[in-house]
Amino acid sequence: MAVYTEVTDEALAGFLADYDIGRMVAFRGIAEGVENSNYSLRTTAGDFILTLYEKRVDPADLPWFLGLMEHLATRGIVCPRPVAARDGAALRQLCDRHAAITTFLPGVWPRRVRVEHCAPVGAALAALHLAGRDYAPVRRNALGPEGWPPLLARCGAGAEAVRPGLGAELEAALASILAAWPTGGEAGLPVGHIHADLFPDNVFFLEGRLSGLIDFYFAATDLLAYDIAVCLNAWCFEADGGLNVTKARALLAGYQGVRALTAAERGALPVLCQGAALRFLLTRLYDWLNTPPGALVTRKDPIEYLRRLRFHLSARDEHAYGL
Amino acid sequence: MAVYTEVTDEALAGFLADYDIGRMVAFRGIAEGVENSNYSLRTTAGDFILTLYEKRVDPADLPWFLGLMEHLATRGIVCPRPVAARDGAALRQLCDRHAAITTFLPGVWPRRVRVEHCAPVGAALAALHLAGRDYAPVRRNALGPEGWPPLLARCGAGAEAVRPGLGAELEAALASILAAWPTGGEAGLPVGHIHADLFPDNVFFLEGRLSGLIDFYFAATDLLAYDIAVCLNAWCFEADGGLNVTKARALLAGYQGVRALTAAERGALPVLCQGAALRFLLTRLYDWLNTPPGALVTRKDPIEYLRRLRFHLSARDEHAYGL
Repeated sequence: MAVYTEVTDEALAGFLADYDIGRMVAFRGIAEGVENSNYSLRTTAGDFILTLYEKRVDPADLPWFLGLMEHLATRGIVCPRPVAARDGAALRQLCDRHAAITTFLPGVWPRRVRVEHCAPVGAALAALHLAGRDYAPVRRNALGPEGWPPLLARCGAGAEAVRPGLGAELEAALASILAAWPTGGEAGLPVGHIHADLFPDNVFFLEGRLSGLIDFYFAATDLLAYDIAVCLNAWCFEADGGLNVTKARALLAGYQGVRALTAAERGALPVLCQGAALRFLLTRLYDWLNTPPGALVTRKDPIEYLRRLRFHLSARDEHAYGL
Repeated sequence: MAVYTEVTDEALAGFLADYDIGRMVAFRGIAEGVENSNYSLRTTAGDFILTLYEKRVDPADLPWFLGLMEHLATRGIVCPRPVAARDGAALRQLCDRHAAITTFLPGVWPRRVRVEHCAPVGAALAALHLAGRDYAPVRRNALGPEGWPPLLARCGAGAEAVRPGLGAELEAALASILAAWPTGGEAGLPVGHIHADLFPDNVFFLEGRLSGLIDFYFAATDLLAYDIAVCLNAWCFEADGGLNVTKARALLAGYQGVRALTAAERGALPVLCQGAALRFLLTRLYDWLNTPPGALVTRKDPIEYLRRLRFHLSARDEHAYGL
């Protein structure tokens, strides 16, 4: 939950003068979101979100992210659409930050995941994958398998401090996952643009129906099925650490109702899920060790993902996920 | 900036079923506010704020606060108006917290105070004081002079850790302030309901005009002129710690345009300002010493108020404030 950069009213007024979106009516910081500063902005023309991009986002990636959102929105995916200023550019500067205004999406993210959420999430993810097919630019997934060894190395001895034996356990898991990681492309698993962070707080529902997807700032070009593995981790585990197979089955069925998985993708589900669990475990562990006292962000418990990782390591094949 | 209590969508749906305010459209946590959890709530009927009252607020005070807001709103003060559910009650329960829905106010709080803000703030404060006159219930100011000695005692040796000599300096200031503190009532300074926390983040402006006052959860019955002293501290000091007399003069003139100060009130301004500076210094110091690592709240520097306190202690009379 975060507003890292305070925008003065004068700075905001100057910024809005470049747009044709009416006069300001209200402007409030949004508690959700941990990477960037987000404001809810109302003008006489409607509702918008103003995002200031903070240090974790590489400015060189911003045109790719905004281009993807525009591309997806044009193809019927309900996601924030960048709003261009009068000069045609959506990516701008405000308070020494890169900044963009996007459209506001109605809906509420589910604080508690129910089975009924899972099929729509799967279907929306597949629709996103299909809609992204003709977006030509690519973005390497910095938090994909190549990023995990350096991330674990940077956690160093801190892993042991969090839990004795954790360092060795993660080293072993990492080696096993990398050894089994599937290749992508013609001969391997289908590759495309993935959301890569489709957690419940990035999916809105309204009156029981999925009403939008947000936060594309981890999106990248990678194995499509890895995105499903992220969602299985994010949506289908219970508080006690166990997989809810009914939710997993619903999510996978929702996905396959829009895009059928190949046999290779199905077979790779366990290792993809292992990798996804490891990825979130590592970033949470790193944040846990590096969040200063008094920070604005709640640290998320990395151990939650250790339980998921162990489950995935024990999964013999895709049947473990209800397929 | 805070959302302390996560409201699930099912809990919210159940809560809203008791109201006649349409169906839910959007629901987002608001970053501003440090005492309670605030959500921006949009329904098919309009925009509202949902507040969940957290531990610092005494539930016994909530009817008084909501009653005051209703009273003031009815008398033309633009402030959040409690929205009653179908059974007529505005104060309810949600997620094991007391909770209320209030109306949404347009506007933006000024991140950087300009002279032009100060007269409208003074005028709005005076209007609030006049509008509150016929609100019969009273609430003792828990953070008034009687509250300061125990607050300082609870900071204990921590004051020394923040700054060597601070403990002794505050003890001396406290004794001097309490000795000179004016009495209220018929023979003394006018008493009424005060906001007691009218900082810039509690005042909205829209197109250069004051558009609303929010956050009445420190309001109490106390010396009216003490409320002005709070505002002088909150609105009229520059980043270097010095008083901006132009701002102070504007604020006082704005106030007196609506309600003239008595001679006793004018003469008491220095000690009232000393008390107000000490009050915010003490609560900030206490929070500084007691905010756990990883908390959601940014700690505010108490030393900022030490500079103000010293200024007020050196003020010979009301002329120091441009009167």
